[in-house]
Amino acid sequence: MGLADPVFLVNYKTYAGTTGDDALAFAETIERVRDETGSRFAVAPQLPDLRRIAERTDLPIVAQTAVPRAESGIGDVTLEAVADAGADAVFVSHPENEAAFTAVARAVDRCGDLGLESIVAVEGLTTARMALAADPDWLLFERPADIATDEGMVRTHPERIETFVETVADEAAETRTFVGGGIRTAEDVARAFDCGVDATGAASAAIEADDREAWLRSIATAVPTADASR
Amino acid sequence: MGLADPVFLVNYKTYAGTTGDDALAFAETIERVRDETGSRFAVAPQLPDLRRIAERTDLPIVAQTAVPRAESGIGDVTLEAVADAGADAVFVSHPENEAAFTAVARAVDRCGDLGLESIVAVEGLTTARMALAADPDWLLFERPADIATDEGMVRTHPERIETFVETVADEAAETRTFVGGGIRTAEDVARAFDCGVDATGAASAAIEADDREAWLRSIATAVPTADASR
Amino acid sequence: MGLADPVFLVNYKTYAGTTGDDALAFAETIERVRDETGSRFAVAPQLPDLRRIAERTDLPIVAQTAVPRAESGIGDVTLEAVADAGADAVFVSHPENEAAFTAVARAVDRCGDLGLESIVAVEGLTTARMALAADPDWLLFERPADIATDEGMVRTHPERIETFVETVADEAAETRTFVGGGIRTAEDVARAFDCGVDATGAASAAIEADDREAWLRSIATAVPTADASR
Amino acid sequence: MGLADPVFLVNYKTYAGTTGDDALAFAETIERVRDETGSRFAVAPQLPDLRRIAERTDLPIVAQTAVPRAESGIGDVTLEAVADAGADAVFVSHPENEAAFTAVARAVDRCGDLGLESIVAVEGLTTARMALAADPDWLLFERPADIATDEGMVRTHPERIETFVETVADEAAETRTFVGGGIRTAEDVARAFDCGVDATGAASAAIEADDREAWLRSIATAVPTADASR
Repeated sequence: MGLADPVFLVNYKTYAGTTGDDALAFAETIERVRDETGSRFAVAPQLPDLRRIAERTDLPIVAQTAVPRAESGIGDVTLEAVADAGADAVFVSHPENEAAFTAVARAVDRCGDLGLESIVAVEGLTTARMALAADPDWLLFERPADIATDEGMVRTHPERIETFVETVADEAAETRTFVGGGIRTAEDVARAFDCGVDATGAASAAIEADDREAWLRSIATAVPTADASR
Repeated sequence: MGLADPVFLVNYKTYAGTTGDDALAFAETIERVRDETGSRFAVAPQLPDLRRIAERTDLPIVAQTAVPRAESGIGDVTLEAVADAGADAVFVSHPENEAAFTAVARAVDRCGDLGLESIVAVEGLTTARMALAADPDWLLFERPADIATDEGMVRTHPERIETFVETVADEAAETRTFVGGGIRTAEDVARAFDCGVDATGAASAAIEADDREAWLRSIATAVPTADASR
Repeated sequence: MGLADPVFLVNYKTYAGTTGDDALAFAETIERVRDETGSRFAVAPQLPDLRRIAERTDLPIVAQTAVPRAESGIGDVTLEAVADAGADAVFVSHPENEAAFTAVARAVDRCGDLGLESIVAVEGLTTARMALAADPDWLLFERPADIATDEGMVRTHPERIETFVETVADEAAETRTFVGGGIRTAEDVARAFDCGVDATGAASAAIEADDREAWLRSIATAVPTADASR
Repeated sequence: MGLADPVFLVNYKTYAGTTGDDALAFAETIERVRDETGSRFAVAPQLPDLRRIAERTDLPIVAQTAVPRAESGIGDVTLEAVADAGADAVFVSHPENEAAFTAVARAVDRCGDLGLESIVAVEGLTTARMALAADPDWLLFERPADIATDEGMVRTHPERIETFVETVADEAAETRTFVGGGIRTAEDVARAFDCGVDATGAASAAIEADDREAWLRSIATAVPTADASR
C-alpha cells in the first residue's frame, strides 16, 4: 500500500499500555480520526502487534525495526517477516536504534525487493547525503536530543529543516522527507509541514495525552489533506 | 499455558521460508504430528508471526527474544508485548543473542509478573550457577560452537549434560533443563532425554529437512510422551 | 600489585582533558596527594594512557574495560593486553558498559590466570548473588541512574549498601565491595566507608572539580588510612 | 605524520602473542624490514600498546578503533586519546567492528580536527558512495567473508577492486584506497597494487607466519617503493 503523504505517524515505541488489545484499540481510534477528518495517519506498533493491526485497520503500518535475513540468527526480525505481516514501511535506521553503516545499504536494497518503503534517519546534511547514496524512500531528520522533549527542531531551528528539505529536493527529488523529535502540538505539526516535509510524527506526546482521541483530532487540523497538499 | 515437558522445540530463528503463511503452515504441521503421536512440541516463530500461531494452534509458543520495558526505546519488543500476543515462554538470553549480565535478572523477574516462563542460556556449570541466582524457569545448556553443526554435546560430551542436569537438580529442583545445539536426528533427541533433560530442540535440522513432516514424525519417536516420562 | 583497600578510585572515563599528557599529570597529582596523606588512591585512565601511568607512577591502575581474547576480533582490547601494560584490575562489567551474561564468567576466570583483579558491577542482591557464582575479586554496587548526579545511594539509601556489604560478607567473605555512583564530596566518601565497603570512587566530581588537587585532598580526609582501616 | 602510500599494514587485531613486549618486538621487526627494503609498512597494535610503539619506532600507527568523545562513557576509547598517544590513522569503521551509520560522519569530522587520517570500510560501490559523502581520507574495501581466508578478492574478483579504485578516483580523487581480506602472500600484495590501490595489509597471515621476518621480507618485494610508485 505504501505510505502516502502528507502523513502523521504515531509511533508506539515501547511505551506501557500500547501492546496487545491496547495496541489495536489505539489504532482503531487513529483510523476513526483519519476517516472523520480526511488527514492521513500511520502507525508503528511493536512487532507482535503489527499483523493484527494490518488486518483489522487499513492504516499504513511502519515496522519499528527489521533487518535483512541472516543465515541463522535469533531474536532479530527479518524484513521478510514484517513484509509478510503487512508492514508498508520500516525504520532501517532510527536515532534510538541505529543500523550499522553498511547494513543501511543492504536493508534499503532488500526493502526494494520486498515492496517495503525504507526510512533512514539522518542528523544533518552530511548524513543525509550519505543516506541518499543508498537511495532510500524516506529520510527522517531527527536529533536524538530532541526525543521526548518539547524542544524539537520545528521550534528551535526550523531553518535547518527547510535547508534539509531543499537539499533532498535538489539531490534526490524522489526521496521523501520526514521530521521528528519533540513534536507535541498541532502548532508543531503545522510548522513541520510549513518547512516542506512530507511527514512528521510523535510518540511520547501521543501516548501520554490525557485524551488520545482529542489529541489526534487536534493534530489532524494541522495535517494537510491529500487534496490540499500539492 | 506454559511449556509442559518433556517437549521438543522447533525454533524458526530467521531462516528463509519460515515467515508469514509459511510460519503458520509449518506450525500446523507440527501440531498435527503432535496430535497424532502424543509427543509434545513447541514452536519459536519470529515475533510478527507469534500471535497468529498462538490463535490458530494450541502449541506452546516461545518468543525468540523480548526485554523488560524501557522508557521510550524503539525496535525492542517488550515482555508485555509477547505475553499479550500469546507467548508462553521467552529466551531471556540465548547463545546467539545474549542479554547483558544485569538484564537477565530484570527479565526473569518481569517474566514472573507476566506469567511467562523464562529461559536462560548457560554454557557450563559456572554460568548455570550464576543464572540460578536469578531463579529462571528453565536453563538452556548450549554452546555457540555447536549451533547448526552435527557435533552437538549429545554426541560429543553427553556426560557434561548429565552433570549439568544433576547440578541443577541438586541446587534448584524446580528449574527445568533444556539442551540444544547440533540436534539433528531422533537418535540425538533420545540421547538428550537419556541425559535427563526436560526439553531439547532444533532449528537448522528442522528447517532444512527435505520432508519436514517426516522429520518431525521421526523426532516424535524419541520424545517421551507425557505418560511415560515421569 | 593488586588493588589494596581501603581505596578511592578516580575514573577518567572518556572525559575531555583526561588523555595524553593531561592523563599523566592528573595521575601524578593523585599520587602526590596519596603520598602526602597516606590515603590510598587508584586511577582508571583510558586504555592508550594505561601503560605510561603504570610506568611513571606506582598508583594501582584499573582498566576501564577488556575482554577475553577472541580468535581474530578488531577493536576489542584483551585482558592480556591490559595485564601486559601494567593494569592491576579491570572492570569486567560496568553499569555503563555491561558485559554479556556468560562473558562475565569467562572474563573473571581469565583475570585469575593473568593476575588481574576482576570487578563486576551489580545493581542489587540478586545480581550480586549471580556475580558471586563467578567468584570475582570485587563487586561494584552502582545504579546507572546515580551516575554523574549528586543523588547517589550513599545519600539516598545507605541501608541498601549496608545490606549489600553484609550479604557479600556472609556469602563470599573474600570478595571485596565497592560502591559508586553520585560520590561527590568527602562526606559521601565517609558515608560509603561507614557502610562497610572496601572501595568507592568518582568520575565526574573529580574531573569537573575547579581545583582537582584540593578536591583530592578533601576526599583523602575521608578515606581510612591503611593502619586505621582494619 | 600520516599514512604515506603505498603502504602495507600489519594489523595485530587481538591475536595471541601480539601484546606487551611482543607487540613492540614485532613492530621493531617491521621497522627493520622497512628500513632495509625501502617498502613502507604501518602497524595496528592493540590500544594499550599504541603509545610505546609510537615512541620507540617511527612506523605510522593505525588505531584499531576509537570514537568521538561522549559525555561520560566508560570503556570506549576516544579519538583524542589515540591522537594524543601518537596514532596517525584510525579505523572509523571496520568489517569486524562496524560503526553506526551516523557515527561514521561524526568520527570522520572529528578525525579532521585532530589530524588523524580516517579509514572507513565499505563492501561495494553503494557503501563506497555513502562513505564518500562523509569525505574520509581512506576507503577500505573488504568483505567480512574474506577475513582470515586465502580467498580474498585479489584472487577471486580483482576486477571488482579495479572498478572500486576507478569509482573512487572519479568521484573523490583525494580519497585513497585500501583493500584487505585474505591477503597472504607477496603475489596477493602484487595483485592488490596492480589493481591500483594505495594500501593493502594482513593480520592472520602476518601473525601466523612461521618466520615473521621472512614473511615481511617476502611481502616487501611486492610493495612499490615510494620512488617507483607514482
